[in-house]
Amino acid sequence: MRYLIIGADAAGLSAASQIRRKDKEGEIIVLEMDKWVSYGLCGLPYYLSGEVKNIEDLVSVPKEKFEKTRNVEIKLFHKAVKIDRERKIVVAERTDTGEIVEVPYDKLIITTGAEPIRPKAIKGVDLEGVYTLHSLDEGVVIRNELESDRVKNVVLVGAGYVNLEVAEGIVKYGKNVIVVEMLDRIMKNFDTDVSSMVKEHLEANGIKFALSSPVEEIKGENGRVKSVVAGGKEFEADLVLLSVGVKPRNELAIDAGLELNPDGGIKVDCEMKTNDPDIFAAGDCISVKNLITGKPMYVPLGDIANKTGLVAGDVAAGGSFKFPGVIGTQSTELFGMIVAKTGLSEEEAKAEGFNVGSVLIKANNAAHYMPNHKPIWIKLVFEKPSGRILGAQAVGPERTERVNAIAAMAITQGMRIQDLLFVDFDYTPRLSPVWEPIQQACRVALKQLP
Amino acid sequence: MRYLIIGADAAGLSAASQIRRKDKEGEIIVLEMDKWVSYGLCGLPYYLSGEVKNIEDLVSVPKEKFEKTRNVEIKLFHKAVKIDRERKIVVAERTDTGEIVEVPYDKLIITTGAEPIRPKAIKGVDLEGVYTLHSLDEGVVIRNELESDRVKNVVLVGAGYVNLEVAEGIVKYGKNVIVVEMLDRIMKNFDTDVSSMVKEHLEANGIKFALSSPVEEIKGENGRVKSVVAGGKEFEADLVLLSVGVKPRNELAIDAGLELNPDGGIKVDCEMKTNDPDIFAAGDCISVKNLITGKPMYVPLGDIANKTGLVAGDVAAGGSFKFPGVIGTQSTELFGMIVAKTGLSEEEAKAEGFNVGSVLIKANNAAHYMPNHKPIWIKLVFEKPSGRILGAQAVGPERTERVNAIAAMAITQGMRIQDLLFVDFDYTPRLSPVWEPIQQACRVALKQLP
Repeated sequence: MRYLIIGADAAGLSAASQIRRKDKEGEIIVLEMDKWVSYGLCGLPYYLSGEVKNIEDLVSVPKEKFEKTRNVEIKLFHKAVKIDRERKIVVAERTDTGEIVEVPYDKLIITTGAEPIRPKAIKGVDLEGVYTLHSLDEGVVIRNELESDRVKNVVLVGAGYVNLEVAEGIVKYGKNVIVVEMLDRIMKNFDTDVSSMVKEHLEANGIKFALSSPVEEIKGENGRVKSVVAGGKEFEADLVLLSVGVKPRNELAIDAGLELNPDGGIKVDCEMKTNDPDIFAAGDCISVKNLITGKPMYVPLGDIANKTGLVAGDVAAGGSFKFPGVIGTQSTELFGMIVAKTGLSEEEAKAEGFNVGSVLIKANNAAHYMPNHKPIWIKLVFEKPSGRILGAQAVGPERTERVNAIAAMAITQGMRIQDLLFVDFDYTPRLSPVWEPIQQACRVALKQLP
Repeated sequence: MRYLIIGADAAGLSAASQIRRKDKEGEIIVLEMDKWVSYGLCGLPYYLSGEVKNIEDLVSVPKEKFEKTRNVEIKLFHKAVKIDRERKIVVAERTDTGEIVEVPYDKLIITTGAEPIRPKAIKGVDLEGVYTLHSLDEGVVIRNELESDRVKNVVLVGAGYVNLEVAEGIVKYGKNVIVVEMLDRIMKNFDTDVSSMVKEHLEANGIKFALSSPVEEIKGENGRVKSVVAGGKEFEADLVLLSVGVKPRNELAIDAGLELNPDGGIKVDCEMKTNDPDIFAAGDCISVKNLITGKPMYVPLGDIANKTGLVAGDVAAGGSFKFPGVIGTQSTELFGMIVAKTGLSEEEAKAEGFNVGSVLIKANNAAHYMPNHKPIWIKLVFEKPSGRILGAQAVGPERTERVNAIAAMAITQGMRIQDLLFVDFDYTPRLSPVWEPIQQACRVALKQLP
């Protein structure tokens, strides 16, 4: 049996590892168009800040070690250019030599990942000094720039959480940082009442924002970026980071006649099978089922890539794993504030047609008498009149991530606020108030139920 | 309607508050034998260490404020001595004046709490300088002693988590601390492989242990403790803390003919009703249903007291809350190490007759490339061959408490390891590895299932 995997990052190598666990004999080949394998792009903001020292640190398992321990062959600089489903062959072009090679497969797993959106409509988007932060090599170039004195003013386009993580890192270099966002708030999948708390916190830490400011033009001088015009204002810029979203790399799949979801993600079932029973797809190139709405959702995140890669490899090798779906859980830490969300925001839940109730409460992360206790803000979104939990958003210090995990479990299990209220959590004065914070939110929310 | 509550701590005042929310008119009277109300005994170790400065800080809501905001009358120094179910009257003795008073009720809630076990069989157990740490006043006396130079050697009898919390606090005064325990391990409801990690950590921080050392005698001089003889050895002691368990204060209930569970806890249903439909009980004087074993469990913890008090008050005032039960979730932090457990240990699960599987794994609390990542050890206990999760134990730095909360949710919901494996948690490099630590344990555990 010959397993062929396109892409050697989280999804691809999770698949390869799982195939090897299930099938000790089969041949496993991975085509990688770049030179990097098994790396954590999610760590790039921390490499930029210097918190992660070397770019190599972001590599999870080095190529040679991966190949040896899993008995897998990874072919670097091999860009897959065509899938011939009739002949069960992938055509690849060597990016170093230009050579064209054909690689046969019995089971094929597509993990081509995502690519950053670089809006061509914006004049000046290709000027020198305008980056998208979507490869390790680009990370190295940007960090070199940040470490130089030439770069004083940095404009970050897009107020999603990646750019906010980057903003924290850049402020530490003493640069002027402004985040330019076309919408009227940061972190668009959070509700405004929550995202405005995060914005205030970031502003208190030196980040500036220009909201409701779509980018009109990027101006340059001698081919190098000089300023960003957005919302009618002009912002000096020695360096620009565009983080306005990513999209699935789906050209190969389209060309091969594989079905897509409306969001452009390759369509797969719960076994990560495409409409060709010998072709699987996983990671940032697919979309997956949202367990709350039942609709496909595009979630290009490292943990989902790992999980869907695991399932694809398992099923390809005869296993029976099934990926149930996602609920949209995420978090980050910004200047010591944890910002977390799971499920639907109030706005998203209303847009989906739910009869929505919500509460926003302030709790503590420790007993009231412990001198180090700090507030956690929790927004709980639920369906009326059933009480079914639809989403949670939380901001605060350590322990906020725990609130998010509890909410993720509750949503996955279809629990109602009256079910969550009495769950037996641990209480100890240093780590929690006597009522677990999310249960305090449940108590308040109950008043809205019959 | 006249509601009478015996006891003005967590359970009693939770009940009073909930009654007032449901019934704006009824009369609510609380009898309290002591002078303190609404306090957090769980905070005493942190008062001893000085982390909590004043004993009054442990009071959640002062008496006058509670009475005014809830329209409740709290009668201090009123010790209930008899329940007359025929006449629906409680007889109380004023501990200050000796006066006997009779207080009628329509609905009665017993929240008499727990009392520490002080084994009379041990010679010298009543010597001066031997304490049990079960009241705020005793806490003040002990702290005064610790702050004096006279006390140099402290012997803590019992290696449960309260004494371990106390041990941490006392070491900070520069005292010699030894914990004497009759069993062969600390924290008896943890498995030995886990509890031995905690013991090593405590030893590295200056705590000494004498295990397998039942106390034979406490020796004194001029009426004051001088040493503890245990396991054949004699340990110098200027101060002794006995923490060998607590038992429900159930004399009133027994005298009134109310049913008890075999563990001595007052028997209640899920509405906190005793066998007398007008008498409820809640808090540390009852035992509650363990959701895993279906048997009664005695869990004298502040959060359970709050929850059962809430339910008792709610139902007494005509509400419909139901307390589903407990699973035995607990945690503490000792010298920066979080120690957490939920559900059954491997030993407990075997004793209950389950076909038990278990794994003990080491994960990280952050991405491998983040410089601050630290190990979390997780022991997952499950039923074979179903995969149903029965328990989890975890030790590690921040985020360990999150593992425990996820496990508590999984156990409550009857989830199997294969269900938990794919739950959509947040991943961000500073706060988690790409696979949530407990899901890493699930992956390893899966190998033991068919």
